Amino acid sequence: MTADHRTVDLNADLGESFGAWTMGDDEALLEVVDRANVACGFHAGDPLVMRRTVRRAVQRGVAIGAHPSFPDLQGFGRRRMELAPEELQAMLLYQIGALAGLCRAEGARLAHVKPHGALNNMACADEALARTVVQALQAYDPALPLLAPAHSALERAARALGQPVLLEVFADRAYQDDGQLVPRGQPGAVLHDPDKAVAHVMAMLQAGGIVTRSGRVLPTPIHSICVHGDSPQAVQTARRLRQVLAQRGWLAPGAGVPVA
Amino acid sequence: MTADHRTVDLNADLGESFGAWTMGDDEALLEVVDRANVACGFHAGDPLVMRRTVRRAVQRGVAIGAHPSFPDLQGFGRRRMELAPEELQAMLLYQIGALAGLCRAEGARLAHVKPHGALNNMACADEALARTVVQALQAYDPALPLLAPAHSALERAARALGQPVLLEVFADRAYQDDGQLVPRGQPGAVLHDPDKAVAHVMAMLQAGGIVTRSGRVLPTPIHSICVHGDSPQAVQTARRLRQVLAQRGWLAPGAGVPVA
Amino acid sequence: MTADHRTVDLNADLGESFGAWTMGDDEALLEVVDRANVACGFHAGDPLVMRRTVRRAVQRGVAIGAHPSFPDLQGFGRRRMELAPEELQAMLLYQIGALAGLCRAEGARLAHVKPHGALNNMACADEALARTVVQALQAYDPALPLLAPAHSALERAARALGQPVLLEVFADRAYQDDGQLVPRGQPGAVLHDPDKAVAHVMAMLQAGGIVTRSGRVLPTPIHSICVHGDSPQAVQTARRLRQVLAQRGWLAPGAGVPVA
Amino acid sequence: MTADHRTVDLNADLGESFGAWTMGDDEALLEVVDRANVACGFHAGDPLVMRRTVRRAVQRGVAIGAHPSFPDLQGFGRRRMELAPEELQAMLLYQIGALAGLCRAEGARLAHVKPHGALNNMACADEALARTVVQALQAYDPALPLLAPAHSALERAARALGQPVLLEVFADRAYQDDGQLVPRGQPGAVLHDPDKAVAHVMAMLQAGGIVTRSGRVLPTPIHSICVHGDSPQAVQTARRLRQVLAQRGWLAPGAGVPVA
Repeated sequence: MTADHRTVDLNADLGESFGAWTMGDDEALLEVVDRANVACGFHAGDPLVMRRTVRRAVQRGVAIGAHPSFPDLQGFGRRRMELAPEELQAMLLYQIGALAGLCRAEGARLAHVKPHGALNNMACADEALARTVVQALQAYDPALPLLAPAHSALERAARALGQPVLLEVFADRAYQDDGQLVPRGQPGAVLHDPDKAVAHVMAMLQAGGIVTRSGRVLPTPIHSICVHGDSPQAVQTARRLRQVLAQRGWLAPGAGVPVA
Repeated sequence: MTADHRTVDLNADLGESFGAWTMGDDEALLEVVDRANVACGFHAGDPLVMRRTVRRAVQRGVAIGAHPSFPDLQGFGRRRMELAPEELQAMLLYQIGALAGLCRAEGARLAHVKPHGALNNMACADEALARTVVQALQAYDPALPLLAPAHSALERAARALGQPVLLEVFADRAYQDDGQLVPRGQPGAVLHDPDKAVAHVMAMLQAGGIVTRSGRVLPTPIHSICVHGDSPQAVQTARRLRQVLAQRGWLAPGAGVPVA
Repeated sequence: MTADHRTVDLNADLGESFGAWTMGDDEALLEVVDRANVACGFHAGDPLVMRRTVRRAVQRGVAIGAHPSFPDLQGFGRRRMELAPEELQAMLLYQIGALAGLCRAEGARLAHVKPHGALNNMACADEALARTVVQALQAYDPALPLLAPAHSALERAARALGQPVLLEVFADRAYQDDGQLVPRGQPGAVLHDPDKAVAHVMAMLQAGGIVTRSGRVLPTPIHSICVHGDSPQAVQTARRLRQVLAQRGWLAPGAGVPVA
Repeated sequence: MTADHRTVDLNADLGESFGAWTMGDDEALLEVVDRANVACGFHAGDPLVMRRTVRRAVQRGVAIGAHPSFPDLQGFGRRRMELAPEELQAMLLYQIGALAGLCRAEGARLAHVKPHGALNNMACADEALARTVVQALQAYDPALPLLAPAHSALERAARALGQPVLLEVFADRAYQDDGQLVPRGQPGAVLHDPDKAVAHVMAMLQAGGIVTRSGRVLPTPIHSICVHGDSPQAVQTARRLRQVLAQRGWLAPGAGVPVA
């Protein structure tokens, strides 16, 4: 490793159960990720689920981030909707604060904020919406990093407004040449094979950028690898990835909260 | 005034609008109270209402407290319900945190917590529930005062657990000899006449305790006077009360956050 | 009156209170309209509000229609959102059925369905969405009329699918030459003066079509006049309009449920 | 079989998924029950889940009942709460109507109503609440049967008010001598062994009444056997039970909707 060698961490969405309904294998994921994006009650995660998720993350030494959403429990935050900027900002502050309150009761602090679902997708492509999101985060804490996809409008808004940003790439998703994800409907959009996902990540880390489906490299710092929990192979992929990253010296000792 | 002369402040419930629906005359109340109990979204107060209420309170120099509730928007938090202690605590932390997040964005800090509606009524009479509430507050911040009715189970729980407590009496409500409010249905339960409400408050301050309907005095410190916003005379009563309290030296200069 | 003289009725949105919050002057409107569009709980109107609204409408002989919405209580159904067609249809059936259940308990029957807010606006312009809405209504009852703005995609979808449709014009809104409403932001969009609103309606009835801002006539049957409840002059406009319509023989005796 | 031999059917709670969250094995249960208690959106079951559940039940020839609840999505309708009778009745009508609307779109009709969770538990013991529930059902349809536990306040209220009632016993729960279920916390409360559950049911059918833990018989007609879906053995128990009931002639050909 040279002095400029960057380390990365692994992040995943957690705490997406609600009331009597469970979702995801949080216990398994907490053993392999460094950073949890915790649902804040608007798309998943009631207060008790949130508290328990925070408690477990603290026990495992996993950094906790807020994963705020559009107000859409039934649609799991995946429905596109239009909100007035002032209203959306208030909702983001509400959710971030709510999770911060539960963190405080468990002796933890928020390490980042990552928008969820349709909000994240829309803010990755819409510069005005991206600024709205970043401004809310900045009003809450100008030092709290945004976790955003590399080459997204969210990244650009964070840089323009001076908010720290952690850039993520997806382990199991193919990229287009414009840096956007290949839409899920298309063939090859999702890398189901853990070996291929791991190879994809290592290629990007070694290239120092997003490697697109056509083989182009879009240079970018990479701070975090997102491993989704919604495929059967997700935990397996995450474990393999962690193992390989560790072997090749990409994981910081202690990990958790890399500096942007 | 002697050295041991206590000062009091005025508190009222605010921010109880929701979405397209408005409630109360917040502007008028913010001019006469020192302390606002701000709804946290579970019985009233969506995030945008909360943010605007916080902003106005900051502009007026009014101290901001969280006014958490059972999850009951349709019933305005007035429905009695049974929640597991762990679940209720998570809900309280969620709501307190959410309001704290909006405060942080407006450069404010929470000054107290006061439970709302059925939760408050039940916790005033149920020692176990009162402890559950106080423990949640304590987990959030052991220095953040609970605003509680004098002679209630909430007061006793706060004292037993070492949480600071501010004791309130009601300007427009008559008391029974056990320190409980005369139920609203009964004649004389509510003092609609502002002059009578002011006289009631002054009698209690001078007696150093709750003055019951039968004339008994239940000694208690009094830190805050609650003026309800739900009667037409509420603002008028609050204005008269403030005037009289000021004339007689009961209002602290700057007021807002008395020390328990 | 000749044999082909058409009669019209007046419709308005009602039952838009929720829990402890009230909205609109339903009592006054029920005295001047023939047809109430009753909120179904998704943007306003909890079950108790719905039942009371139905009961009063029955007492006044006012026809009851379902006024279903996107699931958006906080945004009063005014937020644009994207729902899968199958999901939206289930929501529409749910809301229509819920109101029908309350009608049944009060001895009433649904007379029409009129989508609310952003759903209505979007479905007036989007042919696919309009078909989705009409299909849901048709699955519920192929004989239940849709109440839709004249010259809208909703009208076209109803005609294409063979669902009965009642066409409405707005008393207090100016029209563009394409038949769409002048957006609220623009000058002259809303006719605040009751006299002007009444004159506008009479001009359209006499012309047998929408009279646009520029004076063009877009021929259409007109079955119902929508009087909004959200302006201070709304009730006054509705009363004047009713008076003039009655004088000139445009109101059917008994009114309520014209046949499409 | 003698002429007075009664037949029974099997019922289970279904459609308890919500949005992105799934619960229960509805497909398996639909193959073994005659009667589905379908969640109506207040404790589980969004409109799309409801529609799909209705559609599948129709395909399988399973009778559909409404399974209304307190408004408590997060607590799955298991939280005890106090609602004004008028408010609860409106909520019941809303839920019954909503499911009826979805049934209508699928060519089905409601066959019964069975309250859910805490509402059911409370109404089994509280005569006034039981009357409130039955009155709501009666206002909706005086011929629609209530499905109620034998020897409950709900049964008594239905009989007193003349509403048809179907009486159920639980396959996997032990009974106290007062006819109430042994509370879940106590040893022997739940019969996990399918063979024991089947034997328990057969004993009750042959005795013509509830057989309590101590061996007493509380005579009652039995119209339906409730098989819960929340234990791993539930489907297995239901299958065994169906098999044995069929062998011994307890299942009506066509089953589904026995007459009260």
